[in-house]
Amino acid sequence: MQNQCLVNGQPATTVSITDRGLAYGQGVFETILVYQGIPCLLDAHLTRLEQGCARLNIPAAGLRQQLLEDLQVLKRPSDSAVLKITVTCGSGGRGYATPETPAPTRILNLSPLPDYSDNPDQGINVRWCETRLVCQPALSGIKHLNRLEQVLARSEWHDPRIREGLVCDTRGYVVEGTMSNLFMVSGSVLHTPDLSQAGIDGIMRNEIIRAARQAGLKVEVGQYSPQQVEAASELFLCNSLIGIWPIIRLEDLTFNLGDTTRYLQSLQLQRKET
Amino acid sequence: MQNQCLVNGQPATTVSITDRGLAYGQGVFETILVYQGIPCLLDAHLTRLEQGCARLNIPAAGLRQQLLEDLQVLKRPSDSAVLKITVTCGSGGRGYATPETPAPTRILNLSPLPDYSDNPDQGINVRWCETRLVCQPALSGIKHLNRLEQVLARSEWHDPRIREGLVCDTRGYVVEGTMSNLFMVSGSVLHTPDLSQAGIDGIMRNEIIRAARQAGLKVEVGQYSPQQVEAASELFLCNSLIGIWPIIRLEDLTFNLGDTTRYLQSLQLQRKET
Repeated sequence: MQNQCLVNGQPATTVSITDRGLAYGQGVFETILVYQGIPCLLDAHLTRLEQGCARLNIPAAGLRQQLLEDLQVLKRPSDSAVLKITVTCGSGGRGYATPETPAPTRILNLSPLPDYSDNPDQGINVRWCETRLVCQPALSGIKHLNRLEQVLARSEWHDPRIREGLVCDTRGYVVEGTMSNLFMVSGSVLHTPDLSQAGIDGIMRNEIIRAARQAGLKVEVGQYSPQQVEAASELFLCNSLIGIWPIIRLEDLTFNLGDTTRYLQSLQLQRKET
Repeated sequence: MQNQCLVNGQPATTVSITDRGLAYGQGVFETILVYQGIPCLLDAHLTRLEQGCARLNIPAAGLRQQLLEDLQVLKRPSDSAVLKITVTCGSGGRGYATPETPAPTRILNLSPLPDYSDNPDQGINVRWCETRLVCQPALSGIKHLNRLEQVLARSEWHDPRIREGLVCDTRGYVVEGTMSNLFMVSGSVLHTPDLSQAGIDGIMRNEIIRAARQAGLKVEVGQYSPQQVEAASELFLCNSLIGIWPIIRLEDLTFNLGDTTRYLQSLQLQRKET
C-alpha cells in the first residue's frame, strides 16, 4: 500500500519550519492499528489526544470532529495499516509563549504495518536499559512529542534479536518498555507499573486492565523494582500495534508463555472497534 | 526585513512530517544575534550545536562546513536580526530507533529581532515559576528540541510587564529563566547556577563567566536556593539575543541595577564576533 498523508485535511507531506511541534515538541500523537479498514480503539485514542492537548495548552474544541472528517478523506486500506495522528500547537507565539489563539496543526499519516512475520507474539527477548525516565508529573501519561528519553533508551542496543528494552525511572522503579507498556503475572495477580510520575498511559494497557478485571483477574497498579519484575511468573508487553508480546527472555532469565498471557492474547483486544 | 529560510541549503519553509525533529524532538537549535550583518559568537554556537548532535546520535561530520556554506546563501541583513539554526536527525529509522546512517536536516531561519524598544536592558520584572525542571544529566546543557517544560513554565503568566520567569529543578535549586541564564552578585562574587542536572549551557553565560574572570571578578558556579537568589545584591539574566537584562523586581522584592551588572553590560558581549 502507498502512504497517505494529510495536513489540516489537505494532501501534504510537510509542515512549516515554524511549527511549535518541531520547535518545542508542543504536540501529541497517536499510533493506531487499522484492521480491515477500521481504525481500532479510535474513541480511546482520540480521548487521550484531547487530554494531551489540554495539558499542553492546545485548544481541542472541534478537534475530534475535524479528525473524523480527515479520516473520511483517506482511502480505506485493504491490508492492515498504521494510522499516526499528530496534533501540534501550530505556528506563532513569541518564543516559548504559546499564542493567545493557537491554530493547531493536524497531521495524519497512513502507512503499512511493520513486518512482524517473525511472530513476536510467540515470545520475545528483551533487555534492561540504562537510560532513566525522569519523574515529571506535568508531562507523565500523555503521548507528547518530547521523546528524547525513548530515543536514547532505544539507541542502547542494535542486536535485532532484542525486540524491546525495559526502562526505569530515576527512582529505580520499572516504568515501561521504550515503545510499550509492561505487565507481569505474580501468583494470581496481574501487575503493571503506576504511570503518575513517568511513562505513557497506553490505550492497550487500559484495555488489558479492563478485560482482565472483567474476567475476574485481580489487577494491581503499583511501584515495582527490577527484582520484582524478574521474579514474575509471566511477563508481557503491549501497545496498540503489537497487541501483546510475551517476554520469554529478559537478559539471562527465561520465562514461559503462561496461561494468563495466552488468555489475554486470545481476546485480540488490539482489533477492537470504537 | 523579510524572513529568509533555507532547508538543507535550499530556499524552503517546510520540513517532512516524518522528520524525527518533529516526531521525537531529536534535534538541537541555536538562536544567534546577527549584528551589522555578522552572526555573533558563531563559533561558540556551532560548537554547542555539534556537541548537542553528538549527545543525540546525530552525525555532525561536515555539518559545520555545510552550515557555513548555507550562511553564504543568505542575503546579509542591514538591520539587526535573529538567525535560528536547527539541526534534526532527519527522517527514517524504525520508531524510536535512530537510522543507521541518519541524513540530518539543516534549517536556517533569519528573521527580524524582537522589539525591545521598551529598553529591558534598563531593568525588568520577573517572577518565580511553579513548573519544575527535571534532573536528566543525559539531556542537560544542550539546546535540544524537547522544550515542553519551558513552554509550560512560560504559560504560567500573561502579564506583559513580567518579562521572564525563574525556574527551579525538582530538588528545589534555581536553574535559569525560561529563555535565559541567571547570574547574581553577592558581596564581591558573581554566582550562577550549576547546569549539570538541568538547564541550557548558554553561550552568553559562558562569555560572561570568561569576561568577569578576565576582569578579576570571582565567579562561582553552584547550587542556589530561591532564598539565596532573593538575598543577592544584584541579579541579571542573559542570552545571546538580549545580552544582559538586569532584574529590578522579583515578585515583591526590588533590586538595584548595580555596578557589576552595569560593567558587564558595557562590554556588549552579545555583539562579539567569532
